[in-house]
Amino acid sequence: MPTHSTITVDLGERSYPIVIGDGFLDGGFDLASHVGGADCVVVSNEIVAPLYLESLKACLAGKTVHEALLPDGETYKTQAASAAVIDRLVAAGANRDTTVIALGGGVVGDIAGFAAATYMRGVPFIQVPTTLLAQVDSSVGGKTGVNHPGGKNLVGAFHQPEIVLIDTDTLDTLPDRELSAGLAEIIKHGAIVDIDYLAWLEDKMPALLERRPGPLAHAIARSCEIKAAVVAEDERERGRRALLNFGHTFGHAIENSVGYGEWLHGEAVAVGMLMAAALSGIDMEQQNRLRALIEAARLPTNVKGVDMQKLRAAMNLDKKIVDKQLRFIQLETLGEAYIRDDVPEERIAAVLARAGT
Amino acid sequence: MPTHSTITVDLGERSYPIVIGDGFLDGGFDLASHVGGADCVVVSNEIVAPLYLESLKACLAGKTVHEALLPDGETYKTQAASAAVIDRLVAAGANRDTTVIALGGGVVGDIAGFAAATYMRGVPFIQVPTTLLAQVDSSVGGKTGVNHPGGKNLVGAFHQPEIVLIDTDTLDTLPDRELSAGLAEIIKHGAIVDIDYLAWLEDKMPALLERRPGPLAHAIARSCEIKAAVVAEDERERGRRALLNFGHTFGHAIENSVGYGEWLHGEAVAVGMLMAAALSGIDMEQQNRLRALIEAARLPTNVKGVDMQKLRAAMNLDKKIVDKQLRFIQLETLGEAYIRDDVPEERIAAVLARAGT
Repeated sequence: MPTHSTITVDLGERSYPIVIGDGFLDGGFDLASHVGGADCVVVSNEIVAPLYLESLKACLAGKTVHEALLPDGETYKTQAASAAVIDRLVAAGANRDTTVIALGGGVVGDIAGFAAATYMRGVPFIQVPTTLLAQVDSSVGGKTGVNHPGGKNLVGAFHQPEIVLIDTDTLDTLPDRELSAGLAEIIKHGAIVDIDYLAWLEDKMPALLERRPGPLAHAIARSCEIKAAVVAEDERERGRRALLNFGHTFGHAIENSVGYGEWLHGEAVAVGMLMAAALSGIDMEQQNRLRALIEAARLPTNVKGVDMQKLRAAMNLDKKIVDKQLRFIQLETLGEAYIRDDVPEERIAAVLARAGT
Repeated sequence: MPTHSTITVDLGERSYPIVIGDGFLDGGFDLASHVGGADCVVVSNEIVAPLYLESLKACLAGKTVHEALLPDGETYKTQAASAAVIDRLVAAGANRDTTVIALGGGVVGDIAGFAAATYMRGVPFIQVPTTLLAQVDSSVGGKTGVNHPGGKNLVGAFHQPEIVLIDTDTLDTLPDRELSAGLAEIIKHGAIVDIDYLAWLEDKMPALLERRPGPLAHAIARSCEIKAAVVAEDERERGRRALLNFGHTFGHAIENSVGYGEWLHGEAVAVGMLMAAALSGIDMEQQNRLRALIEAARLPTNVKGVDMQKLRAAMNLDKKIVDKQLRFIQLETLGEAYIRDDVPEERIAAVLARAGT
C-alpha cells in the first residue's frame, strides 16, 4: 500500500506543500491542477528525461507541455545553462502564467529555478526532484542559482516553488554514489538539530543503503520537515537558516578547488562536516561517532590529494562571509549547532593541516 | 536655497526613501551612512562616470569604492552586461554586505540592479539616477532586468533599493532628447491618475524644457509620489501596478521591432500612449489634448517607417500577456486608467493601421 505524506513549508502567501510518496508518476498524481496557466516547460537532463519525462507528462493532462533538456552534471550549472532555459522559454512563447517544472536532481532544479525566478521577473515553478539529495535538500526552501568560476551558487535568487512532488520510486534508478551523497545531507539534518534522528539513522543506515522504501520515505519526510521548519523561520538566511550550511564552508571550498563535478556535492559536505566538527572542538568520541555514520553511508572522510592552499583561498569566496569574516556553523554537541563568525585563523589552519594528511 | 524633499516607498520592511534635491554630489549628501558594509561597487557607464563618479565618491567617505563601467546605451542592456557586473563583483571580493550603487540612467540602473538582485541571491542596492527618465520612473519600484533578443526586460527580478538619491543638478548635462524622453513618463503619470498634474504640465512644459530647477524638482517629486503610491499597493504587479504600463505594450513593441536603441524608451512610450488612447476610444478632444502635450514636450507622435506586421508580432512577447491574451492599459478618461484583457484584434489592427500611415 502506498504511503503518502505532506509537509507544508509555512511562508505565508508563499507557503507550499511537499508531497512524498510512491506511484505518483504515470498519472498517479494530478500535477496539472497545480499548473495555473495553460502551458508548462519541463526542464530536465539527458539522463533523467528518458527515464521519467513521459511518465511525468501523464500527470499533466490537459496542459501544453514544452521541454528543455540540459546536459547532465554540476559542470553545466552555469549562467549559460540558465540562459539556455530562458531561450527555450522565449521560443515556446512562455508568458507570466507559464509554469517551469524541474524534473531531475539538484543541478536541474537550481538551473530551472533560477530561470523561473528571472524569466519575466518570476514565473511559477514546480520541483519534481529525482535524486535523494534534491529530495531532502535542494528542492526545498527556494534557493536557486548557478555557479560562477569564482564560486558555487554565486549567481542566484530566492524563488519558492508551488509544490515539491517527491516520488520515491525515482530512487530505484539512482546510482549508489548519488544515494550516498543524499545521505550526507540527511546526516547533516540530524547533526545540527536532532540527535534522535541521528541515532535512528545509525540504526537504519543498512536499510537505507538497501533502498528499503519504508525507511527511505521516513528519512525523506523527516529531513524535509527539519528543513521546512528552519526555512519557515528564516526564508532569506539572515540568521538561523545558516545552520543548514553545516559542513558547507569547507564543502564548497573542496568542490571549488578540485573543480565542480569531480566530487559530488554530498561527498564534499560529508568531509566538510567532519572538518567543521573538528573545528567546533566537540570531544573525539562525538567526532568519531559522526565519522562512523558518514563511513557507514559510504561517503569519504578526508580530502587527501586536495591542494590545501587552494582550498583555503576558495573559502574566502563563501557567501556566508560577512565583512571579510568567515562564518562557520559549529556544533555545541551532536544534534545542536550554532553560528560563529570569529574562528581564529590558526584553528582553521590546524583543521586544514590535519584534513590534508 | 536648496530645496530637498523625501518620499517614502512604503513596502513594510523593504520600505525606502527617495531623496530629491540639488547639491548632493561632491560630498553634499552622506551616502556612506546608507552603505551597511565596508565596501561598495559603483556601476556606471563611459558617459556618466567622467562627469559624476568622483563627485559621488566624495559622498562615500570611509568606504572602499570599487567601480564597474559599462558601455552606454540600451543595446548593451543584455545578459552579458549583467554577467560582466557579476564578474566585477567577484573580482572585487564582494560579499553579501557589499552594496551595489547604480550611477547613471535607466540602463545602468536596470543592469546594476539585476546584478545586485542575483549576486549571492541578493546584495544591497542604491540608485543614483542621472537622467530624468530614471529619476521619475526606472529607479523607483524595484524592477530590474535586461533585454533578450526575444523582448525587452524579459530577464530580471524585483529588487528594492536601500535609497534612491536624486540630484537634479545632474540634469544640467542631459541631452535635450533624453530630457524629452523623461517627460514622456511624467506625462504618463498625469494621464493615468492625475488630471490636475496633467494640467500643471501643460502650463509648465516650456519651463521644464528650459530646465528651470523649481518646476523640474516639483515634477520629479510628484511623479515619484504617484509611482511610489502605485508600487506600495502592488509591488509585484499582480494588479494596479500594471497601470504604469500605459503606452508600454505598443511602446515596447516599437522598440523591439526597430531594434533597441534606435528609439529612446520614452519616445516609444510617447507614441505608445497615443496609440493606447486611440484604442481606448476616448473622444478626439482628449486624444488631441494628450497629443498636444506630447508634441509640446518635443516627443514623436507617430510610428511612420515602422513595419506594422513586425510590430504586431513583437506585441505578443509582452510580459503583460496572460494566457495568450494581450493586456492593455486603457483610459476611461484623461487622468483615469484601467486594465483591459479583452480588446478585439480588429480594434488593435485599426489602431496600428492608422498609426502606420
